[in-house]
Amino acid sequence: MSRATSSSGRYTLRMGFLDTSDFRRFEPDKMQKVGLFETPQMFCDVYCLEPGQAQKVHAHAGATKFYYVIEGEGTFTIGDTTRTLGPGHLAWSVPDEPHGVENRGNVQLVVLVSMAPNPNSP
Amino acid sequence: MSRATSSSGRYTLRMGFLDTSDFRRFEPDKMQKVGLFETPQMFCDVYCLEPGQAQKVHAHAGATKFYYVIEGEGTFTIGDTTRTLGPGHLAWSVPDEPHGVENRGNVQLVVLVSMAPNPNSP
Repeated sequence: MSRATSSSGRYTLRMGFLDTSDFRRFEPDKMQKVGLFETPQMFCDVYCLEPGQAQKVHAHAGATKFYYVIEGEGTFTIGDTTRTLGPGHLAWSVPDEPHGVENRGNVQLVVLVSMAPNPNSP
Repeated sequence: MSRATSSSGRYTLRMGFLDTSDFRRFEPDKMQKVGLFETPQMFCDVYCLEPGQAQKVHAHAGATKFYYVIEGEGTFTIGDTTRTLGPGHLAWSVPDEPHGVENRGNVQLVVLVSMAPNPNSP
């Protein structure tokens, strides 16, 4: 397995396979974005949020992003709609559409996140 | 919720949220690719494979694809490596890299699949 730090510094170059459960990482001060892989076309992360932690609502020009809930429950805002979603649920934003996630529950939240294209193209 | 058939015919236009478990669909004759959403930047599907069904190894110029196992076990080929992966595992291919998936197990396999950019841009 090849391992090296990518240009963005947040990704390790790996060969094609991983177990997302190896990348769960929580910190008490803020949510964690853990890089799984990236290419110029897309990146894939896991976001790990303790209860009370959030990614503020924001938007990206020219990029689509989706969130897939792996564990816990997240309160997602997409555009002007906010919904609380559990495992197996997906939320996505089109270019310029506001989006964010907050853990209003009392258990840890793990979300698979992908965005295309990759704004930090390696 | 807005619903209409997209240009590719395989996606229904929806607003930002869905439960992937609503999109499980199996057929005895071949694996099912069920469209979740698409934008010009990416598409997101669930692939549903009965035991014995497969997506043949193939490659895409200029596109990155990943598979995330939701349920069951899949045998994934990425480049010249083949591994059997269970829930929570991810496999991905970079542009021009051969990739495919086969259900060699004895239970149904459900995989979240995303590709960027979208070759059938809506």
